[in-house]
Amino acid sequence: MTGVLNDAAKAAVVAGRVAHLVTVNADGSPQLSVVWVGLDGDQIVSGHMADRLKLRNVRRDPRVVLSIETGVVNEHGLAEYLVVRGRGDVVPGDAAGLLQRLAHIYLGPNVVFPPGTDHPEGLILRITPESVSGVGPW
Amino acid sequence: MTGVLNDAAKAAVVAGRVAHLVTVNADGSPQLSVVWVGLDGDQIVSGHMADRLKLRNVRRDPRVVLSIETGVVNEHGLAEYLVVRGRGDVVPGDAAGLLQRLAHIYLGPNVVFPPGTDHPEGLILRITPESVSGVGPW
Repeated sequence: MTGVLNDAAKAAVVAGRVAHLVTVNADGSPQLSVVWVGLDGDQIVSGHMADRLKLRNVRRDPRVVLSIETGVVNEHGLAEYLVVRGRGDVVPGDAAGLLQRLAHIYLGPNVVFPPGTDHPEGLILRITPESVSGVGPW
Repeated sequence: MTGVLNDAAKAAVVAGRVAHLVTVNADGSPQLSVVWVGLDGDQIVSGHMADRLKLRNVRRDPRVVLSIETGVVNEHGLAEYLVVRGRGDVVPGDAAGLLQRLAHIYLGPNVVFPPGTDHPEGLILRITPESVSGVGPW
């Protein structure tokens, strides 16, 4: 399947802007976390050193939505933002490596994060985008 | 009940930063919209000139969550954000008046919005906060 993220949407994902990530709690209520995100091919990825409510939610119900403010104000004075609906998958992986890559974008080129060097395997949330909305060129 | 928003949280709500508002779709999936918000007492309010999916969702299931980036970066380099879980109520009201008040904050002190002068009654989403989380002094 051709990815649903166009180049502008992909640029918004990797620009170092936080993502507002929504999952569904066991009781059906919405759960929202703010996370760092990157791209791996057409998937949006986030790294997690430990299991978390949002990851348990995704295992039970893979339907997620996330939004990102781009920081751009359009010609009508409206703040642009990207909304992506998709399906999440939680897999074991090099979360520390992903977080370090993202820390260079989100915190600075010389930041060491997570601290230390010998990290256990963590969890990667991989989101396959299914539709895009919002205000912006996507 | 004493409101769950402290002064810092209330300041974040009225600062002219967009809110990422999440409701629950009929199929149980999360729905996310970006909206302007204000305060009315201890409630977070948004104005809507027409009925919308998010409003229909709230009528069926009042559980909502919203997040707001404050634009402040804390001493660890992390972007502050406020997350509010609460219950929404959709009521008829002067949505145009609320939107005009918010437009002065979000768009500028001289902006006329919505355009025109003779607006029909619209809908107000009133959110009663129940808990607060995120990164920031709340």
